[in-house]
Amino acid sequence: MSCVFCKILKGEIPSEKLYEDEDMFIIRDIDPKAEKHYLMIPKRHYKLIADMTKEDGLAFQRAIRKIPTLTENLGLQSGYRLVINQGDDAGQTVFHLHVHILAGQPLDFPDLRKK
Amino acid sequence: MSCVFCKILKGEIPSEKLYEDEDMFIIRDIDPKAEKHYLMIPKRHYKLIADMTKEDGLAFQRAIRKIPTLTENLGLQSGYRLVINQGDDAGQTVFHLHVHILAGQPLDFPDLRKK
Repeated sequence: MSCVFCKILKGEIPSEKLYEDEDMFIIRDIDPKAEKHYLMIPKRHYKLIADMTKEDGLAFQRAIRKIPTLTENLGLQSGYRLVINQGDDAGQTVFHLHVHILAGQPLDFPDLRKK
Repeated sequence: MSCVFCKILKGEIPSEKLYEDEDMFIIRDIDPKAEKHYLMIPKRHYKLIADMTKEDGLAFQRAIRKIPTLTENLGLQSGYRLVINQGDDAGQTVFHLHVHILAGQPLDFPDLRKK
């Protein structure tokens, strides 16, 4: 198993878990794109939304609904953005589904068609 | 009811529904940020993930899992990005939960800390 997120989950790669429950854990992104940038990572390894089983979907919605209850811990009081990158065009680099949580500043929504 | 997405759902504001089922519908964003930019909109009106009931969560995960099955219809073959904006810092402008689907080109993930 060479998945970096699975290794973090098992403690084989050190990374502070800011939150953890039976469905998922939350860490800081090592390459932040905003003042606050976390990753919410489902514990079960699968690459894409297309690979979600029904059980994975249930765990996923529990995890999504948990995020706003962590507002104070994570500093999400003024709002936040969730981002899920899927496949090549989105630049998905770790092939274990994860949700970016961006916050801590006004978050522009740039037009990606412009170069 | 002054919600623009509820009005589109009821046909009071014209907008082509690219897909519709019991949980959600998909339209094009009128202010596209990528070559392909859709909105997946849950049919039931609520503003924030924080407002999701358990039933809304179940409908939400069914809707999320439906998106990759629409790859060919929506042109998502090379990947896509899902974005959910919550609250002021994220620039949420319509207060009915919706998921942006960005695709059709390589999608930069810009550092929003830089001005």
